[in-house]
Amino acid sequence: MTYFDNGATTFYKPPEVIGAVTTALTRLSANAGRAGHALSMRCGTLVVRARERAAEFFGCPNPDRVVFCYNCTDALNIAIQGYLTNKGGHIVTTALEHNSVLRPLHELERRRIISLTVLQPDHTGRITATAVASALKATTTLVAVTHISNVTGAINPVSQIGEVTSRYNIPLLVDAAQSAGYIPIDMRENNIDFLAIAPHKGVHAPQGVGVLLIGNRHNITATRYGGTGSSSRSLYQPADYPESLESGTLPLPAVAGFLAGLNYTAKHQASHSAHLANLGHRLDNHLSQLKNIIRYNPPNSLGSIFTLNIGNYYSGEVSDILSEQYNICVRGGLHCAPLAHTYLGTLERGAVRISLGVDNTADDVDYLANALKEISG
Amino acid sequence: MTYFDNGATTFYKPPEVIGAVTTALTRLSANAGRAGHALSMRCGTLVVRARERAAEFFGCPNPDRVVFCYNCTDALNIAIQGYLTNKGGHIVTTALEHNSVLRPLHELERRRIISLTVLQPDHTGRITATAVASALKATTTLVAVTHISNVTGAINPVSQIGEVTSRYNIPLLVDAAQSAGYIPIDMRENNIDFLAIAPHKGVHAPQGVGVLLIGNRHNITATRYGGTGSSSRSLYQPADYPESLESGTLPLPAVAGFLAGLNYTAKHQASHSAHLANLGHRLDNHLSQLKNIIRYNPPNSLGSIFTLNIGNYYSGEVSDILSEQYNICVRGGLHCAPLAHTYLGTLERGAVRISLGVDNTADDVDYLANALKEISG
Repeated sequence: MTYFDNGATTFYKPPEVIGAVTTALTRLSANAGRAGHALSMRCGTLVVRARERAAEFFGCPNPDRVVFCYNCTDALNIAIQGYLTNKGGHIVTTALEHNSVLRPLHELERRRIISLTVLQPDHTGRITATAVASALKATTTLVAVTHISNVTGAINPVSQIGEVTSRYNIPLLVDAAQSAGYIPIDMRENNIDFLAIAPHKGVHAPQGVGVLLIGNRHNITATRYGGTGSSSRSLYQPADYPESLESGTLPLPAVAGFLAGLNYTAKHQASHSAHLANLGHRLDNHLSQLKNIIRYNPPNSLGSIFTLNIGNYYSGEVSDILSEQYNICVRGGLHCAPLAHTYLGTLERGAVRISLGVDNTADDVDYLANALKEISG
Repeated sequence: MTYFDNGATTFYKPPEVIGAVTTALTRLSANAGRAGHALSMRCGTLVVRARERAAEFFGCPNPDRVVFCYNCTDALNIAIQGYLTNKGGHIVTTALEHNSVLRPLHELERRRIISLTVLQPDHTGRITATAVASALKATTTLVAVTHISNVTGAINPVSQIGEVTSRYNIPLLVDAAQSAGYIPIDMRENNIDFLAIAPHKGVHAPQGVGVLLIGNRHNITATRYGGTGSSSRSLYQPADYPESLESGTLPLPAVAGFLAGLNYTAKHQASHSAHLANLGHRLDNHLSQLKNIIRYNPPNSLGSIFTLNIGNYYSGEVSDILSEQYNICVRGGLHCAPLAHTYLGTLERGAVRISLGVDNTADDVDYLANALKEISG
């Protein structure tokens, strides 16, 4: 099998990650920070180390504001619903967002809690800081922008956007699902207030944990209520971080895998970047020689996400042929990002997304290119 | 280390569970049901098998209504908030509930969305069906009852309560965090409409997945919005189960572990029950010979949860001594169940909870009893 759906989940999980998960399962099956006994404390220490490492890696000013949750969608919901439900206001977002941002925002709009402006990409496929600045109103309470489009790989200038939002003291939420682990992110330097991470992608962690990192300037109110191991007498959710946003038993094996994945990713970031760039150039060269191919990646995109269609095929037909005849995994359809496909003009047929991973080889790329050549005639 | 905090998380994870998690990490790192390629389909098949096995194990009428989520607290929040936020009404619950039920209900009460009746246990420490029947009003929209108290081990008569609630067509939510895997539960037979499970306890699954099972009579509206791999064009959450309630990437390793844990638990349920009963009797005999011990378990309780205090010690002092001097893990404090401790008169000092696990031995129990004897003088 040749796997090119790393934009959904990276197939490769390094031995360090698998080892950390196995150790957690065999030696650390207790509740972190819920009891005073030695094993609970050892679990608690591991979770604190993971918070500290994540804060360091992503430039979050306070490890207590690194919140573990279900997945990146959960992180985005906690940020969007937790920040906006009691506050309302006008929100600026973009057509490049995933449904994990679009759907919670549209739900709040439907309930008349917020009003919404959805920015379109410019001719380079990106959301500019100028466009964000122009969309701001006196009532704007949040700007929500994806760092990298999961459809086109376009990289939005979050640093420039952060300069605009911080000037007006409007919190900036960045969906880093596609960027974390691949390109540097620093919440402090880039004026990011809420950062949502999908560790099972670029950090090579297991599925089963999301992370929301919260800056010091804005607070988020809990939307999930339950046991926090703190203020247990109270029938109401406490306000302290991280407990307020972390009800119930933490996914310790996945958190342990996340910590191992962060260390692995930090250690190999330069070589991974070079490897993915090489593979990307190789695939780009192959694709540029094929006929009947329509490509959708802007020039400034990530370089390891390739999105295309072939002739008059529906995208799902191409991905089915690749799977059935070549045992190659890519992703057709809309990638849960309908407005990005509206922008591209591909809402009907979708597009074929090829997302490279660090374990892909030049041979994998050549094999894929040959398959695409045979399909495209 | 001798671990007696299995009511929080069972320490023992069988090789089948660890193997299933490792296999998922090494061979199944793709997104279940999100793409048409072979690996996504294989992941999807595993998730469907886990739904089917859970539906069979807990008597849920429809596997599509077996919903995977973050943890049991998340399952309870999805049920409570998803069922009540748009509906409101009068809710009947109990003083034996964990904060994972009490806090979401009190939050909805504070927002004036619902009104709340909290039933006290009778002299046997249980919530009777008669008490539930007496508390119902014409406006009652939900009854939420824990199956087994996490503080006392008291077993509530959910079957009798289900007869009452089904007679009035009021949905019954059962928190099975402490019971699932230990005593039989059948949603159909017991007229349970919403069942919340903590697989990392009695099912011996990894931390990192909760399960909400939904009967056919009542529906739950989504409270988390995002990519569902279905109806991707829509900017609003679809209504189909399970997608509607499962936004974002599923925790495949934990789901694989849950399936393995269910099979393991089903296979060993009789021998586990006998073993835990033996250990329970042994500990009970030891405790009955100790002086200065106050015990809080009603006679009809689970038999593997022992809750006590010693002399004038705060519960946290006893658990600290056990941890530091004997390397024994138990849980002091309030166990996130403040109203249960109010009922017991232990809100100030808390209580020491000893919760046995299937890997505990007679020697473990004797060692613990000896430590308690030395502490109690």
